Amino acid sequence: MRQQIQRGVPSSPSCSSSTSDCFPLRDLNPAECGSETSADQEKQERADLSSMRPVVSFYLSYLLCLCLGLACLACVCYWNSHWRGGFAWDGSGLQFNWHPVLMVGGLVVLYGYGAVLYRVPLTWGQNKLPWKLLHAGMMLLSLVLAVLGLVAVFDFHNAKSIPNVYSLHSWIGICTTALFAMQWAVGMAGFLLPCSPVSLRKLLKPVHVWMGASILSLSVISCISGINEKLFFVLKESSSGTQPYAALPPEALFGNSLGVLLVVFVLVVLKILSNVDWQRPDSRPEDMAYRPLIQEDN
Amino acid sequence: MRQQIQRGVPSSPSCSSSTSDCFPLRDLNPAECGSETSADQEKQERADLSSMRPVVSFYLSYLLCLCLGLACLACVCYWNSHWRGGFAWDGSGLQFNWHPVLMVGGLVVLYGYGAVLYRVPLTWGQNKLPWKLLHAGMMLLSLVLAVLGLVAVFDFHNAKSIPNVYSLHSWIGICTTALFAMQWAVGMAGFLLPCSPVSLRKLLKPVHVWMGASILSLSVISCISGINEKLFFVLKESSSGTQPYAALPPEALFGNSLGVLLVVFVLVVLKILSNVDWQRPDSRPEDMAYRPLIQEDN
Repeated sequence: MRQQIQRGVPSSPSCSSSTSDCFPLRDLNPAECGSETSADQEKQERADLSSMRPVVSFYLSYLLCLCLGLACLACVCYWNSHWRGGFAWDGSGLQFNWHPVLMVGGLVVLYGYGAVLYRVPLTWGQNKLPWKLLHAGMMLLSLVLAVLGLVAVFDFHNAKSIPNVYSLHSWIGICTTALFAMQWAVGMAGFLLPCSPVSLRKLLKPVHVWMGASILSLSVISCISGINEKLFFVLKESSSGTQPYAALPPEALFGNSLGVLLVVFVLVVLKILSNVDWQRPDSRPEDMAYRPLIQEDN
Repeated sequence: MRQQIQRGVPSSPSCSSSTSDCFPLRDLNPAECGSETSADQEKQERADLSSMRPVVSFYLSYLLCLCLGLACLACVCYWNSHWRGGFAWDGSGLQFNWHPVLMVGGLVVLYGYGAVLYRVPLTWGQNKLPWKLLHAGMMLLSLVLAVLGLVAVFDFHNAKSIPNVYSLHSWIGICTTALFAMQWAVGMAGFLLPCSPVSLRKLLKPVHVWMGASILSLSVISCISGINEKLFFVLKESSSGTQPYAALPPEALFGNSLGVLLVVFVLVVLKILSNVDWQRPDSRPEDMAYRPLIQEDN
């Protein structure tokens, strides 16, 4: 509750007109309101309903985000197991199939889930440290999956004597993973090491948030160019009956739909991140305008 | 000056500690400060310097944005004239060459310039209507260029009997242009028609801003997947001495660099759009938290 006191959120029902302040940790105490008439009660009920709206709209968006992420993961797995022959780790095309699965699973879905973690209102009234550790852990797992995804494609290229890192897709993908690794290391040092000063955290926070959203945007750019490239590579007219990409066979339709799904997932994540009403109370611009220092509990 | 009064920005020098309020239309009047000692003057000078910082950092970012946009446009023109044979409007490959130039020029560069227009502090102290008209005009020109870019590729495909709109690149590109056309029409009706009520504008504004940034992100996704696809199409080993994409000939390096430049340009535009200190005074979250209605001068 320390945060609430520090933020100076009034506990009187009158505060409920400002949903952005009352949304997170409302603790209305009718005893503080003086004598309550039925009009007051009605006003109170309306205020309660009004302050619930951002919570409900957040959880609906969050549910959509979770479902879209799972759908992306299921689709990329199905594409590579049903049309591309499944998975192996032997330098063959089956090892390459891990590349889209690990990049989509790590650099987009798990990354997106980790990014919106702090927006879940249930996490706000408690000590921030466990959530920081969970955020860092999810991002580390996401980074490990992305690196494994790169290893899969490097192994495949080396086994087939195909040059590495020549296409625009690979340039953007490599830059994204490198930026992500830097972001994770700087975030770890800046926000989790107990010796890092509050002034450094204050300086780092907007950069960390901005870089986080940029890295997710770069990830989806890499994924779309990669899916597009892969479908052109594999869908060529052949004597074995393979239809070309231009004829839009089922695999092409499925791959294109996966791409659209990924874009929608990332837009939903970025929308959740950008909504000021859904930010942690200690991260909102109107809050920061009135306090010279960001409160860091941990 | 009506905006300043409505916003309740204090005219006393003490307000300068909150740069986000004092940045836009500072009109400090020493006569209101009472007797000024040299300490007061020094404080005032420090405050003036401090309030200049966001203006300077904005104009540096804006200059970077303008230069990056021009560099993108120059590079896409050079690529298509130097390596792809130049331009024509005859259904040949030379007509296709207009496609990347018009999409980069319209849907990315001019769109980005139009999006950041309201952030230029010089435009804030005046009637908003001319800037709205300029914003709408730039966006309309950007939309026309994008539609011409689509016509170029449809004409080329039809002349060569190549199917239209089958790749993921084309799906995302078509969706982007359709969303942009809707955004322009809704923006025109909502913000420029004198009969549209303030309550509708209040409702539309965050959606319009969010859609604007999303459309720019979709544009750069389309561009990167398109450049990647084009380089794979044209850079194939042949008896005429063409080097494959994988050998990274000069055209491949140039095309990849153009892609990186486009991504950096879009990130700079999105950074300018997201910086609360650089927003129009009547659009800032901390401002909106205290006023039930967005002030619309026009």
